[in-house]
Amino acid sequence: MQKKIINDPLNAAVETMEGFAAAYLGDVKKLPDHNALVRSDLSDRNTTLLIGGGSGHEPLWGGFIGPGLADAVVCGDVFAAPGPDAIFDTIKAVDQGAGVVMVHCNYAGDNMNFQIASELAADAGIETKIIRVWDDIATGTPDQPADRRGLAGCIYVLKVAAAAITNGAGMDEVHRLASLTRDRVRTLGVAVKPGSIPATGKPTFEIGDDEIEIGMGSHGEPGVRRQKLTSADTLVESMMELLLNDHDLAQGDRIALMINNLGSTTFMELCIINRHISAILNDARIEVHRTDIGSFLTTQEMAGFSISVLKLDNDISALLDQRGSGLVMNFGGAS
Amino acid sequence: MQKKIINDPLNAAVETMEGFAAAYLGDVKKLPDHNALVRSDLSDRNTTLLIGGGSGHEPLWGGFIGPGLADAVVCGDVFAAPGPDAIFDTIKAVDQGAGVVMVHCNYAGDNMNFQIASELAADAGIETKIIRVWDDIATGTPDQPADRRGLAGCIYVLKVAAAAITNGAGMDEVHRLASLTRDRVRTLGVAVKPGSIPATGKPTFEIGDDEIEIGMGSHGEPGVRRQKLTSADTLVESMMELLLNDHDLAQGDRIALMINNLGSTTFMELCIINRHISAILNDARIEVHRTDIGSFLTTQEMAGFSISVLKLDNDISALLDQRGSGLVMNFGGAS
Repeated sequence: MQKKIINDPLNAAVETMEGFAAAYLGDVKKLPDHNALVRSDLSDRNTTLLIGGGSGHEPLWGGFIGPGLADAVVCGDVFAAPGPDAIFDTIKAVDQGAGVVMVHCNYAGDNMNFQIASELAADAGIETKIIRVWDDIATGTPDQPADRRGLAGCIYVLKVAAAAITNGAGMDEVHRLASLTRDRVRTLGVAVKPGSIPATGKPTFEIGDDEIEIGMGSHGEPGVRRQKLTSADTLVESMMELLLNDHDLAQGDRIALMINNLGSTTFMELCIINRHISAILNDARIEVHRTDIGSFLTTQEMAGFSISVLKLDNDISALLDQRGSGLVMNFGGAS
Repeated sequence: MQKKIINDPLNAAVETMEGFAAAYLGDVKKLPDHNALVRSDLSDRNTTLLIGGGSGHEPLWGGFIGPGLADAVVCGDVFAAPGPDAIFDTIKAVDQGAGVVMVHCNYAGDNMNFQIASELAADAGIETKIIRVWDDIATGTPDQPADRRGLAGCIYVLKVAAAAITNGAGMDEVHRLASLTRDRVRTLGVAVKPGSIPATGKPTFEIGDDEIEIGMGSHGEPGVRRQKLTSADTLVESMMELLLNDHDLAQGDRIALMINNLGSTTFMELCIINRHISAILNDARIEVHRTDIGSFLTTQEMAGFSISVLKLDNDISALLDQRGSGLVMNFGGAS
């Protein structure tokens, strides 16, 4: 059994959401019957933003609600999509009469349940729009993005949607900008040690002491290949080659760069990784506009990280730089 | 050997600082000969703030430099104090003619080297003031705080110092406010799994599969006791009892609360922990003004967490809420 500081393993997702709610000190309320949070004061909103997916990836999703970020969050159990009823009830709780934009990752369960909830909402007279995030280049091909899994790129998508809403954009414009962001972000993850689900305590995969999995999914799904663990610099070179080839970035392009800790990798390693990513991008004359390093979308205590590259234009760049304040990330804080 | 994604283990601290510098995208420069960072633009500063200590605790120290935070950072090798020359050269690089306030944690090596550097600075005509942070209640007694080790409470101290400087406070006033903050913060840490130093790959301590160490230090030093791992709620109750007794908090007091990940504990666990801390504080009628949850001061991939409680007054509270933007924490971001 993996050693975890929890109470009832079967109640971990619910208690997690209660802990998130407590951390927001009244700015956010938990829905009594669901694993869902809604901002207490939505008076600054017309259109609202709902995000969600499986639990177990904290600080996503619960850490990203607040002014300039999401207005509501709904989660399922660990690594499980929220149910249609939970999503529908959260839509009703967050809607201010101007519709709800929903951002989630591209997994079968999430796709089905958000779609059903969207139809329930339509029947109840609430307009919704869905953006599915599919940034994982280890699955599918660039011309079939809907075959790709959603990874940490979802954070850029939700931030752009939230910022556009803050600026008064309507549903169609929010959907357009968030979809554009989704289409411009690519992510590749690697893992060297598995995570484990609280309910079982068992590792989600096995891997040799000297091995690394390239393209690991956010629930421990297999990637593109398993290889011997190399130096950080050699690893980063092969990852950036895959990412830049997939993305078709050119000299002079401007990007946002995210190095996301999948769980128990040290921040020291992430810095060492960023050091070489920066050198590679500098050599390629690709300008980094913004770097985010930290634990954003995790897979419990899995060791590994992902690199996300978002190709910017002026609209996306301005929205990304706008202020937004959840529990975790520092958007628009510079000055 | 612990599996880490690094290059030369003996060069990890230097490459980490280079990775931090790269992440700041020109806003911060690395000193060529030292493991040190200085803000590129200090035109908003008279008095400046220098922080530092051992490497291996990332995102501390390098993640906390920027507008409204520290002006310079100097680090030693992993778990080792920076040398007097490195500190002195960083003082010279950051001083704007109005003196340098220095915040570090209370360890023999740091105490000695920052003191020597302070004397070298005095000889060179640069005034400095030192604040040693000693918030660990697992060592020493409340009446002998200088016997206590420094833990995550240093983040509150550096933030208050930086905010006071931003407001134009002079050396004496910055020193007074930062010392007051230091005297009002108490921390208790626990660990369930060791971290490891890159150079050796060996765990910093051994612990049974069903055990937890109460009062673990930030380099894996022994705490007050080792016991069987209990539920999160039972653990939190005993930790909060120790913290509140040491602190002498009373009904009606207002605090800032930090739940710091020592490395590989999941954010899910931290939320479950916060859920019960909040309930205990609510029962005690102690008001939480601000909650920070995340990885701030780590011990490599050690699993465990610390709870810090800062007793607020109006001055400290206002300074803590001021905007500050490093790589990691979201100060003053709430709209």
